[in-house]
Amino acid sequence: MSSAPVFQRIALLGIGLIGSSLAHAIRQQGLAAHVAIYTRSAETLDRARELSLGDSYHDAAAGAAADADLVIFCAPLGANTALARAVAPVLKAGAIVSDVGSCKASVIRDVAPELPDHAVLVPAHPVAGTENSGPDAGFAELFDGRWCILTPEEGTNADAVEKVADFWRQLGSNVETMDAEHHDQVLAITSHLPHLIAYTIVETATDLESDLQKEVVKFSAGGFRDFTRIAASDPTMWRDVFLNNREAVLDILGRFTEDLTALQRAIRRGDGDKLHDSFTRTRALHRGVIAAKQT
Amino acid sequence: MSSAPVFQRIALLGIGLIGSSLAHAIRQQGLAAHVAIYTRSAETLDRARELSLGDSYHDAAAGAAADADLVIFCAPLGANTALARAVAPVLKAGAIVSDVGSCKASVIRDVAPELPDHAVLVPAHPVAGTENSGPDAGFAELFDGRWCILTPEEGTNADAVEKVADFWRQLGSNVETMDAEHHDQVLAITSHLPHLIAYTIVETATDLESDLQKEVVKFSAGGFRDFTRIAASDPTMWRDVFLNNREAVLDILGRFTEDLTALQRAIRRGDGDKLHDSFTRTRALHRGVIAAKQT
Repeated sequence: MSSAPVFQRIALLGIGLIGSSLAHAIRQQGLAAHVAIYTRSAETLDRARELSLGDSYHDAAAGAAADADLVIFCAPLGANTALARAVAPVLKAGAIVSDVGSCKASVIRDVAPELPDHAVLVPAHPVAGTENSGPDAGFAELFDGRWCILTPEEGTNADAVEKVADFWRQLGSNVETMDAEHHDQVLAITSHLPHLIAYTIVETATDLESDLQKEVVKFSAGGFRDFTRIAASDPTMWRDVFLNNREAVLDILGRFTEDLTALQRAIRRGDGDKLHDSFTRTRALHRGVIAAKQT
Repeated sequence: MSSAPVFQRIALLGIGLIGSSLAHAIRQQGLAAHVAIYTRSAETLDRARELSLGDSYHDAAAGAAADADLVIFCAPLGANTALARAVAPVLKAGAIVSDVGSCKASVIRDVAPELPDHAVLVPAHPVAGTENSGPDAGFAELFDGRWCILTPEEGTNADAVEKVADFWRQLGSNVETMDAEHHDQVLAITSHLPHLIAYTIVETATDLESDLQKEVVKFSAGGFRDFTRIAASDPTMWRDVFLNNREAVLDILGRFTEDLTALQRAIRRGDGDKLHDSFTRTRALHRGVIAAKQT
């Protein structure tokens, strides 16, 4: 325990990879006197109890959120409206509502209108994850050294924003604040498009005749295996990402398709200069990623 | 040294990532009494000498290949015809010519017609690599536990094929033999398409306005960084791969584009069921890759 708890009671609504990692990390850092857990599936709630992830377990979101200082939505984005409606009547004065979703404009759209005036919404996105999901997948170090992006609306209570920022810093994250729409545009490129591409290429391989597919698995070390790992991520979470960041994803996907078509044409025409030029330009960005210590 | 040298003299024509890794591994396993190195660039040859990668250094391919039992082409695929013409006059009776290229039908097309009848061509493809290139990038363990695919034409001298297979097994590789066209089809999926996609997505990001690009680098941990690593691979090598496996790459790229278009349409229409279905199907293939110990 590094210090006195920042929050008396934190409610985690959803206990998958991110929720269970938060549970471990909050306990390890001593950031709450009480962690209340809600999740929709009775089976998953039982599993959270078996793993001793929290201090109390609830089969209704309101039960977990009642009397909480910080309520964190950790379910797929599609559940946000229903969760907000369920907890709104029990939120105490000054309660902070936050989340961990991969899209931020939709969180403000879905959650903000449902909350009472005496609660404060501070949307958050920890840019961290693995291809594993469920309450067994969590670990306390998931957020360590990673970015957490906060996207509070203009005029949000500054103390509440700072409390959430401090919370994430204590989990080891570097905190950045930006506009929700801008967040969604950046993440469409760095995360949503890469996942869509990885899902697609693995789907293409899945549709091959079975003999060829066996060999694809066997010789996957040539580059393909990295895509299968990304494409093993939680389907419900990712469905909701694409449904909730539609415009930004379609925009960057359009640019990607143009670039891919240009390379396709170069291959068809045997235009080695164009290929070499494209493959040379891309090296600079990798050096940038290494310099930013994101590898 | 594990045993008596399998070959008296091995010539490495090209000393990039694969050539220099072979030099290290051959020495470590004691597979040749003498390693002769040729590479086109005087600067690279000097670097190979500084690194003591071989026993002799040659500014002409024929100088390295003269008197060699095994001549391995380790340059980009586009150099194969010129290399074959250069070494053909000096190859001794029974000399084995092999290579390490990522496409195999083109090697047979380019090299076989140039060789004298007393030499034997055994094309090989070690399915191993990193994003680094050049003589400093090599290390002896690169091939350990990886596949090496041999694609000899029907009727190739069986002793020569077995000698090459044994060579790769001593480097720690698992050896598989298949038809060159089939190899090119499988690798188009497991390696060539993934590289093309990674190059494309990084090129798309490279064309963004510079402020946005900085943020893409900063938040690359969300999936993008894996693509930048793949897209940092050697541009000349990859240009030649796409020029020399055109049909198979364009075929699988066509299927990929169809699948991507279907997902794009699902996003535009808000068809969550289609997205969830696609993202669920892809998980099975990842389990296959894990079971095949290719992660």
